[in-house]
Amino acid sequence: MSIQFNDFERIFNPENVAVIGVSSEGFGFGKGILLSLKAIGYAGNLYPVNPKGGTISGLKIYRSIDEIPGSIDFAIIAVPAQKVPDALESCRKKGAVGAEILSSGFSEVATPEGFELDRQIKEIAAKGIRVIGPNCFGIYCPKSGLTMLPGPDLSREAGAVAFLSQSGGLSIDFAYLGKWRGIRFSKMVSFGNGCDLRETEMLEYLRCDPETKVICLYIEGVKDGRKFFKVLSDTTMEKPVIVMKGGLSDAGGRAVASHTASMGGSHKIWKSALRQSNAVQVENLQEMSDMALAFSMLPLQEYKGMTVIGGGGALGVNATDMADKMGLSTPPLRTDIQEKIRQILPQPGSSPANPIDIANPFVPPQILKETILHASGDGNIQIHIMIQLLHSYKSLASNMGENHMRKVTPIDSLVTACSSSVTEGGKPLVMILPNYKQELEAMDIEEVIREVRKKLLSTGIPVFDRVKDALKTIAAISLYEARRKAIY
Amino acid sequence: MSIQFNDFERIFNPENVAVIGVSSEGFGFGKGILLSLKAIGYAGNLYPVNPKGGTISGLKIYRSIDEIPGSIDFAIIAVPAQKVPDALESCRKKGAVGAEILSSGFSEVATPEGFELDRQIKEIAAKGIRVIGPNCFGIYCPKSGLTMLPGPDLSREAGAVAFLSQSGGLSIDFAYLGKWRGIRFSKMVSFGNGCDLRETEMLEYLRCDPETKVICLYIEGVKDGRKFFKVLSDTTMEKPVIVMKGGLSDAGGRAVASHTASMGGSHKIWKSALRQSNAVQVENLQEMSDMALAFSMLPLQEYKGMTVIGGGGALGVNATDMADKMGLSTPPLRTDIQEKIRQILPQPGSSPANPIDIANPFVPPQILKETILHASGDGNIQIHIMIQLLHSYKSLASNMGENHMRKVTPIDSLVTACSSSVTEGGKPLVMILPNYKQELEAMDIEEVIREVRKKLLSTGIPVFDRVKDALKTIAAISLYEARRKAIY
Repeated sequence: MSIQFNDFERIFNPENVAVIGVSSEGFGFGKGILLSLKAIGYAGNLYPVNPKGGTISGLKIYRSIDEIPGSIDFAIIAVPAQKVPDALESCRKKGAVGAEILSSGFSEVATPEGFELDRQIKEIAAKGIRVIGPNCFGIYCPKSGLTMLPGPDLSREAGAVAFLSQSGGLSIDFAYLGKWRGIRFSKMVSFGNGCDLRETEMLEYLRCDPETKVICLYIEGVKDGRKFFKVLSDTTMEKPVIVMKGGLSDAGGRAVASHTASMGGSHKIWKSALRQSNAVQVENLQEMSDMALAFSMLPLQEYKGMTVIGGGGALGVNATDMADKMGLSTPPLRTDIQEKIRQILPQPGSSPANPIDIANPFVPPQILKETILHASGDGNIQIHIMIQLLHSYKSLASNMGENHMRKVTPIDSLVTACSSSVTEGGKPLVMILPNYKQELEAMDIEEVIREVRKKLLSTGIPVFDRVKDALKTIAAISLYEARRKAIY
Repeated sequence: MSIQFNDFERIFNPENVAVIGVSSEGFGFGKGILLSLKAIGYAGNLYPVNPKGGTISGLKIYRSIDEIPGSIDFAIIAVPAQKVPDALESCRKKGAVGAEILSSGFSEVATPEGFELDRQIKEIAAKGIRVIGPNCFGIYCPKSGLTMLPGPDLSREAGAVAFLSQSGGLSIDFAYLGKWRGIRFSKMVSFGNGCDLRETEMLEYLRCDPETKVICLYIEGVKDGRKFFKVLSDTTMEKPVIVMKGGLSDAGGRAVASHTASMGGSHKIWKSALRQSNAVQVENLQEMSDMALAFSMLPLQEYKGMTVIGGGGALGVNATDMADKMGLSTPPLRTDIQEKIRQILPQPGSSPANPIDIANPFVPPQILKETILHASGDGNIQIHIMIQLLHSYKSLASNMGENHMRKVTPIDSLVTACSSSVTEGGKPLVMILPNYKQELEAMDIEEVIREVRKKLLSTGIPVFDRVKDALKTIAAISLYEARRKAIY
């Protein structure tokens, strides 16, 4: 059952892919994944298979796997559970190094038939074809164009974040979230029941994968806890691993049993084992996406001091209070730097101490940039948090009789100011763009926020909706780095 | 310095309001508030005052306060700090029972002049006019039409939530948030430095105010801690009080000193004192708005058991895990009820146990309603949490060649199903509407979510973006009720 690095490479970047169980009619999984692969632009050879034959989307449907000319690298199996073992064996004989089984009806249904099918799959896998699934959404690999079951519209931009998940739904949700949040993926694997390939082996591969810089995991249960935590600890020495563990409550434990036939476990034991392994534990998908964004976009270092820059006294007070609770420091800026900032900010109402209160939401981007540059000159500051209440421009637009807020919002100069303040000041910046005006009648605010976010992300500045989400990630990066250094 | 209930009523519902410091030119505070009052539709008499005279927006500008015909009930003062004492004294003589001072430049600037002006204001106030501010945004009262400094577009719908805040920015942000989140206000007071009227006296008033059912506070410092906590404890026996305390860190403490001249305090002491008073402590504005929504919309009771209903196994697992950490229970449903639910949900992939996995996001609303009604028949269940991934309809729309997702989303039947399942089942429902697809190109998803939210809110169903936000509020309501009963 051992697997070589090159086998994984062939699985993620296959040239010849068979899709078993493609009916030209109806809305089956096989048809769905085939059309998704075509839609996303997978450029290798696709071989749909169905005993009835025919054509689909310009491709010949082969009546059997044996009929496919030449050999295949990878197979996607979407036939009813009881037909899966035969299909898998044929794929193995046809040279496939791996297969993903989308079908359900195995150990997760907890019937004697389900367990028997599981056993058969394992037996075939042991002969030399590695299996992802069953009961999964399969692989998403933006570089090669492999995509998940319901994913014709996932991003083709490849990036540094890998995701291994026992849940298909969570995988697709994370892929969707990543698309607009600026998280780019190297490889994503929904492995469902994980009857063959699962968390530990794939983690070992990702540890060595040069395309992956940050690893995310969603696990409902692990097969060999001892081995898993050994590999996890080894991996976190090299790259951060963000872990979401499902089923750590009574009800959650019951649910994972029927979901992927997993054992939940105790919250306390998992928390302490993950901490010992220097993994970053997250509680939900929101947190996982926050962490993936920050860990892939910000320099990994200890952040001992930060500034909080924004309009509105209470906003700054609140951000520093929350930062303090997370062990992050917002030290007063050097007095000469405070003086320089005081001279450029509007008076009265501003405060240059840190939090830096810019007094009103309409301070010109150039002034914001100068403020950041001054603050970057303080040796105690390693990162800046900026809060921009863009919805304020809506009121300005109304006052000026403009119907779309974009006309009065300095979108490009704000993005340029932020981006160049990072380049020139040498310290990373994190942007918070809350939207306090989400009425149906104010869609233009949302549009402008999305535009600013997209542009900031393209310059490498991570963007969050909420201050607390951002602070958590900075605290997590600091802690990860501090522990990693302590272990070395 | 004592104040009667009736005086407060006159302050919040004045018939004659003087606005001191209205220039017909420029963008001054006085002009801003006057135009806001006109825009929001304040129906009483407005008397703008400025030594230069003239007219503004069809109103005569009086050259002095004395020139105003008859007496006034309330004054809004927006003249430079050094002119405030004289203006205030004239308002008092003119019969005003209260005044809000928007101007800054008092104790918060920490100069001898600032402290002296503060002292003078207190002296005049003691003679019989109650002062809100200085350095504040004033009063927002939807019923009477009083609005805050930058608030021409706040909601005129009155409701059950009161807010007392030392921060003007936070007040206006909360008012904006409330408008679309479905939080309706009875009275909102930004009291800034609070040199005269402040947290304790106003809390006493709100305790007796029949229009107020939930009280929110943002405080940076209290004047008389002993008295405050006594009044707070008394108040929470009658209505919930949600408290956000700013300045509980070193940096936050420094910031509140320059923001409203307050003393921060220790996090631990505040946490324990607030808990002893059975107040609900929140960490930020997001949490405060979550709590205000839930406490004003859900029945106040102990929620011992709840269901989690949604598509996607991991989503349900995650919700129950988080609930468990907050002390909320998601018990397995009675087996006969599980059987009934199993018969109506799609197979395979669904699970009726609790969390109830509905298998896919396109389950018809009528089936959702029946599911809720069955679950409501379980005596261990007091509340339902439903998670709807509406963005899934976007893929459906694309598949069907529709350009706007609204065309394929069962908006009205979903709202009707939810609303009638509450009426018929007798158990409250909380809806979670996450949006995992926030690209610029997918504004239609956001539009549909906002439409569904608005309609659900109008039927009394609270809506949240994130599961965790909702769970926190249910846990807080349960705890509040349990403690209140324990004290009785």
